[in-house]
Order: sequence, then structure tokens, then C-alpha cells
Amino acid sequence: MGAAGSTADHKNQAEGAGDTPQQVRIALDERSYCIHIGAALLPALARQQLPAGTAALIVSNTTVAPLYGAQLAQALALHYPQVHTVTLPDGEEHKTWQSLNLIFDALLTHGCDRKVVLYALGGGVIGDMTGFAAACYMRGVDFVQVPTTLLAQVDSSVGGKTAINHPLGKNMVGAFHQPRLVVCDLSTLDTLPARELAAGLAEVIKYGPIADMELFAWLEQNLDALLARQQRALAHAVRRSCEIKAQVVGADEREAGLRAILNFGHTFGHAIEAGMGYGVWLHGEGVAAGMVMAAELSRRLGLVDAAFVQRLRTLIERAGLPVRAPVLDAADNAGRYLQLMRVDKKAEGGEIRFVLIDGPGRAVVRAAPDALVREVIDTCCAG
Amino acid sequence: MGAAGSTADHKNQAEGAGDTPQQVRIALDERSYCIHIGAALLPALARQQLPAGTAALIVSNTTVAPLYGAQLAQALALHYPQVHTVTLPDGEEHKTWQSLNLIFDALLTHGCDRKVVLYALGGGVIGDMTGFAAACYMRGVDFVQVPTTLLAQVDSSVGGKTAINHPLGKNMVGAFHQPRLVVCDLSTLDTLPARELAAGLAEVIKYGPIADMELFAWLEQNLDALLARQQRALAHAVRRSCEIKAQVVGADEREAGLRAILNFGHTFGHAIEAGMGYGVWLHGEGVAAGMVMAAELSRRLGLVDAAFVQRLRTLIERAGLPVRAPVLDAADNAGRYLQLMRVDKKAEGGEIRFVLIDGPGRAVVRAAPDALVREVIDTCCAG
Repeated sequence: MGAAGSTADHKNQAEGAGDTPQQVRIALDERSYCIHIGAALLPALARQQLPAGTAALIVSNTTVAPLYGAQLAQALALHYPQVHTVTLPDGEEHKTWQSLNLIFDALLTHGCDRKVVLYALGGGVIGDMTGFAAACYMRGVDFVQVPTTLLAQVDSSVGGKTAINHPLGKNMVGAFHQPRLVVCDLSTLDTLPARELAAGLAEVIKYGPIADMELFAWLEQNLDALLARQQRALAHAVRRSCEIKAQVVGADEREAGLRAILNFGHTFGHAIEAGMGYGVWLHGEGVAAGMVMAAELSRRLGLVDAAFVQRLRTLIERAGLPVRAPVLDAADNAGRYLQLMRVDKKAEGGEIRFVLIDGPGRAVVRAAPDALVREVIDTCCAG
Repeated sequence: MGAAGSTADHKNQAEGAGDTPQQVRIALDERSYCIHIGAALLPALARQQLPAGTAALIVSNTTVAPLYGAQLAQALALHYPQVHTVTLPDGEEHKTWQSLNLIFDALLTHGCDRKVVLYALGGGVIGDMTGFAAACYMRGVDFVQVPTTLLAQVDSSVGGKTAINHPLGKNMVGAFHQPRLVVCDLSTLDTLPARELAAGLAEVIKYGPIADMELFAWLEQNLDALLARQQRALAHAVRRSCEIKAQVVGADEREAGLRAILNFGHTFGHAIEAGMGYGVWLHGEGVAAGMVMAAELSRRLGLVDAAFVQRLRTLIERAGLPVRAPVLDAADNAGRYLQLMRVDKKAEGGEIRFVLIDGPGRAVVRAAPDALVREVIDTCCAG
């Protein structure tokens, strides 16, 4: 699994974790960092090994800042001479240059130099924008992820992918920039709306079909505990997701090949998000329906059987996630999906590359005939 | 001298170069690339080792595109299935997000994927913006520099620094992203306005005091040939500048320390550019007056003698460049300079770091007492 590994103790976890903080170490040479997972981590943050700096800038949004902004600022004030906060508008539709520029405005207005440390307090949008701002400000400063959504904890806190959207495509402008530290405070999930918790579960479920059917079976058994936000179950789901992602990313930091399997469900999912207008479907919801589509395409290519597709479909549905894809264009629905997927950055030379399941627990990236893809779209949108 | 080196043959150069293309190789492991220097290189471009790609996008401006755009497009059409062009407004004042976004618009409108290659055809502004667009588009694509100003040929084509300006500071938003190839066609300098040729000479002169007094003496002897745009002299000036910069950058790619010496004259220079409003003084003009100020500061700190300052001043003046700094604020001129320099990204923790000459041919980076800096500003603005 290349350079990535985990220092977490599996035995310990199986017996009684969730009560004490756990760590996943992302091993990327000089860009290595730790993910801390546990309850009530924010108030005790100053006890962690925080990156040194002349100032900290907390980047949050109008939803999360009122909930946890003061707590984080208080903890950081013990460590940094200056702590500033910038609050961005909330939502995927604000993952734009305009919002990003508010971060630069704050940094420059406060006279922050290269030794500033940015703290991303929020979900994936805040994490992506803060990471990209950190990648670009004075050509690169440190940043720390404090993800407050399940999606961000299991997905965007590992991998170093940062970006903003462009009117013509999602995540089209960005950079690879690793955080110095990730703090997953499970207590912040208490205030997460149920719909967003479910959207986060979509990315947890994803790791089963592509890499770990043991996790998948565990999810089938523990889904109710996760939906009830039991911290022991959440800790396991977050940790295993981060570990699997770390293994994949560690083997392929710059997304040359293997890493693409993490996009299972995302090619169709991005088309759904873009086609419906960003923000109408949550990212995880698009991925959920997209996974069903990708599984169905895998079945039609003879890679998995119908029972597997049904098993995936059932778990996704139990999580409260959509299994049916939306109609994007009444006149030529499949054509619209294909058009949107061609502009996706996984389409190289106009050919759409799908992440398919090549037997449960194993993913493969390949193209598929347009006719077959159209059939899948017709089937999955019909119900 | 770290990883950087040059494959150019000094003896050969001294005897008869300028007639045949020369190469400087920038050795940066897997990001290594070549700088080709010679006359009439553009028409023969397809004979070079160009990076592979599904499409090329030429990024140029309204001044340069009409002069060389068709020539470059024609040459690239022999190598790429598709060649597109985007023409940006000309000038430092357009080194903004708005212009950068025109590049992203073009890339997405043409459906360009990760295998697109961007070609920067123009001066430093075009190079910086194209490089930054390449760094960010889909989190990183290849780009080639085709610098058409002396400044860009001797300075911005080596080092991988890319950026745009922010209303509150120059080059505040950017990335380190190395080109795959740099083509310095000396013939494109024929159309360069005299004022911009002189501005480029400022950066050539810079390499003398900080690293190579032999080059400085050569410049004293060959300045008239350079001003007359004799290609043999230009080839030598461009090559030596690239070689020296390559040595410095190779030893310090990410600007941790040594690389800062390349900013000789830039701390004062940036203050001049920002204080006058971007575009009023050319970058090289700010650097020219800034070098006199930094040399004067070095003298007052006892690092060099008055004769050295005068020798530098004379060469700068002969090149047609300003040796006197502008008054930025009639009420508190020195205060205004200090304020502008503190926001510069070389100011860490509020302390301004100056590149000073520690004896001819050797640079040092250090702070200086405000009172002394004020004296220098007063002297150099007075004349």
C-alpha cells in the first residue's frame, strides 16, 4: 500500500474504541500528518501538536461559525499570538472565487505573513476552499482541517485535494495541498442535519465495494447505530474510511491511477449535481445514486451479479439516500448525462472513464460503450 | 549549487555563440526542463521536444498575439490535434483573477482535459498568469513558456513562480509550478519597446552584485550592444542570467532561504510599484531604483563602499533606467515606503527582510533599523 499506513491499533478499536481519541497517520514523507478522531476534541485542542505560526485564521461559514467558532478561537488563542476569523456564506453554490477571495481579503487586511496557519472549520466546501487558499496564499502556507460534517471527516480530510467550482464545472480550479493536521471532533456531528449525516454515509458505504467488504458487512450490521450517532460506531466508520483512503492516496498521491477508484459513483454523481444545479442535490446524494448506476453498469458488463447490486442498493436506501437518479432533461436525458460526464475531469480525450466494481471489494477504471451507459441511465432514472 | 546546473559550453559561448541556439538545462529531478535561447526559434518550434497533449492553448495578450500568435499557432498545429488561443488584456493592472478566469473559461469552453498544454506567449504577466492557470486547472496541467520580453526571458522563465495580484498586494496569490520547456526566441525582442528592453536589463544587472561581478564587468563593456539588440550580446545576457538564476533556484526551489537573494532591489521596488499604482512604473524600473536604495542601505551598514554604489548607479543610469525613487507620500514618504514594505511577503512577523550586498558579488538577507531605512529613502527620493 505504498507510503501510507495507520498507527491505530485494530484490536483496541474492536474492543472499546470511541471512548478515547484515535489517530490515523497519513504517511507522505515530509508532508505526513495525523488525523485525530474522538469526542470533545475542540476544547482540548491546544494540547495537540499544532503547527507553529505568527497567527491563525479560522475559516468557517454562517452555519458552523456560530456553533463552534468561539470554542475553536478560544483554544487557538492559547497557541497563537493572533487569532482571526472569516465567515463565508454557506453552501456548495458559494464554492466560488468570490468566497475564496474573502479569505485572501482577510489574510491581507490582517497583514498575515507566510507563517499564518489557516483552520478550516466546517464541511467539505470550507475544507476545499481553505485548503486552496492555503495552497495559493503567498504560494503556500500551512493549514489544519477541523471537519464538522461526516462527509468531510471521512472523505475530504484525507488526500490533499483542494478546489473551487467554475460555472462550467465542479472542482475545475484547485491544487494538491496537504493539511498539517486533521481534527475530527465527533461531538460536532451532534448538530449535523440528518440529511447531511446520510450524505456522509454515502462516502463511507463507497469504501466497501471498492476496497473492503468487511467494512460493508459491518455497515449492514451497524447502520442504525450510525444513524443514531453513537460515537463508538461513528469513530469506527470515520477511522476505517480514513485508513482505506490513506492507503489508496499514499500509493498514488497525485492521482495518476489507483486513486481514481475513490471516485466510485462520482462520475454519474457529478453529472447529477451539475445537471440539477449545484446545491440542489448534496454531493453524497449524487454519489449514492451514482454508485447504484456504476454498480448497474458493472453488472451489465458482467463484472458483478444482480445480487451484489441489490445488496448495495438496499444499504444505500436504508441510509436514507436516493437510489434513483433524477431526470436531467426530459427530451434527451441520457444525452444530457453523457454531455455532463464528458466535461468531468476524469474524461480524457473525450472518453469517459468509469470506476466499476470488478467483483465485490475490488474496483477497476475503464471506459464503457455509450449504448450501455444510456441503458443504465434509462433504467436508473426510471426507478 | 544543489541540483541545478547548466549544459551550456562556456568556451563555445565566449567565442561565437548567438548564432546557433543554446540550451540551459534546469535540473529539478522529475521537474527538470530546458531553456532554448536563439534567433528565429518560433517558426521551427515543432522540431523541438514539445510536451505531448490532446490540445494546446496559447495564452497571449492584445499586444503580442497580433505579432507572434499566428506564427506560434502554425508551429503548434504540426504537433497537437487542436490549437486554441485566448487573448488577454495587456498590462500589469490586468494580472488579476478576472483575466485568469478568461483562461479557465477558454479551457472549459473548448472542453480541454488534463492533457492540454498551455503556451504562455508574452511577457512576465502572461507567463505568471498562464503558469498559475496551469498549476490550478484540474489541479495541474503542463505549460510551456515562450517569453517575448527580455525581462521574462532572463527572469520569470526560471524558477516556477507563478501568481496573480490582489488589490492589497502584488503576487499574493500563486503557486510554484515548473514549465516543461522555455523557448526564448531573441527575434521577438526586435518589436520590444525601448523602455521595456531597459526594464529587462535591470534584472540582468541584478545578477552582478548578488552573484557574478564578471557578468557585471561584461555588462559595463557590452551595454551598448545590448541596447542595440545585437543578438550575440542578448544571447549571452539571457544565458548567463538563466544560468545564475538556475543555480540559485536549484539550491532552493521552494524559496526557503538562498533564493531570496534574487529579490535584490525588489523590496523597495515592490513598494514603488504598489505605491505608484501597478503599471505606472514598470517592474524593472522599480527594481532599478530599488537596487540603488538597497545598495545605499548596504553602504550605510558598512557592507560595501561608496565606489561600489556609484558603479552600480552608473550602469543602471546608462541602461536608461531610473536611479532616483519616487515620492509616494508628500506628508510621510518614508512611512509610506515602510508601510508598503511590511505588507510585502518577504516581511515575516512584521519585520522587513532586505537583500543587501555583502561585498560586490555576494548577497545577504537581513533586517535593518527603521531609522537607517528612513535615511536611505529620504536620500534616494531626494536624488
